[in-house]
Amino acid sequence: MEDLKFRIQAHSDNPTKTIVKARNFKLVVDEPTDLGGTDHGANPVEYLLAAYAGCLNVMAHICAKELGFELKSVKIDIVGSLNPARLFGQSFEERAGYKEITATIRPDCDANAETLSKWKDAVINRCPVGDNLKNTTKVEVKIK
Amino acid sequence: MEDLKFRIQAHSDNPTKTIVKARNFKLVVDEPTDLGGTDHGANPVEYLLAAYAGCLNVMAHICAKELGFELKSVKIDIVGSLNPARLFGQSFEERAGYKEITATIRPDCDANAETLSKWKDAVINRCPVGDNLKNTTKVEVKIK
Repeated sequence: MEDLKFRIQAHSDNPTKTIVKARNFKLVVDEPTDLGGTDHGANPVEYLLAAYAGCLNVMAHICAKELGFELKSVKIDIVGSLNPARLFGQSFEERAGYKEITATIRPDCDANAETLSKWKDAVINRCPVGDNLKNTTKVEVKIK
Repeated sequence: MEDLKFRIQAHSDNPTKTIVKARNFKLVVDEPTDLGGTDHGANPVEYLLAAYAGCLNVMAHICAKELGFELKSVKIDIVGSLNPARLFGQSFEERAGYKEITATIRPDCDANAETLSKWKDAVINRCPVGDNLKNTTKVEVKIK
C-alpha cells in the first residue's frame, strides 16, 4: 500500500488556546485554568489520549471482524501520568511527556478467552497511535 | 513538582466513531469515508497532530516569556506520513504509526536569530507531546 499523508494547520488564539484545522474539522485545544490556560478545550496531553482511544476503537473492530466475532461495542478508559517540572522549566531531571500510559478496554462481545487474547495482541500490534507512543519516531521542527 | 494524572473515558458510537470525554469536554473521533469511517470527526492520527500543535503553542509562549520577547502569535503546520498496510493487516513489514512527522512553526515576533535559536531548542526539549512522539513510553493495555 502507498504511504498516506495527514496534515493539520493550527494557530494560537491565545498563549494556551490553539485552533486546529484537520480537513473540514475544527479542534480547540487549551489548558485548564490551574495550568494557566483559558479552559476552552481539552488540553494537548488529553488530546493525545483521545487519539489513542479513537485508534484503539478502530483497531478493536477491524480485528474482531477478522477473527469472526461480533463486537457490539467497546468502552475505553486511558490514564497517563507526567511530571510538569520540565515543561515549566523548574527541573530537567525527568522527561517532559507521559512516563506511562494505561488503557483499559471493555469489549461487549461473546468471544472466548483464547480469541480475546489473539484479538488483544492484534490490536496492540497494529494500532498506529499506540506504535507512535511506544516507539521512537523521527520528528523535525522547522522555524520559518 | 508532583506527577499529574490525565485521563479520558471513551466509547464506540460505531466501529470507527469514538466519543471521548476529557473532563467537561466531548471529543468526536472518526475516520473519513475513504478509510471506512462515517466522517463525523477528525481521525485518530489527525488528533495526534492536533495534540502536538496544541503543545507546541503552549511551549512557544512559555519559552518566549522566559527569553523576554513578545510572541504575538504562532502558526503551526504539521504533516506526517504512515503506511496503512499493517493497520489493515495486509503486511507487517512496516510500522503501524507515523514514520516521520514535520512541524513548521511561524512565530510573529521581533526576536533576533540567536534568541529564536535558543527558543526553538527550549520548545523542542520541553514539549510533552513531542517527547512522547520522539521517545519510547511504557504503554499497557488491559482487557476487562
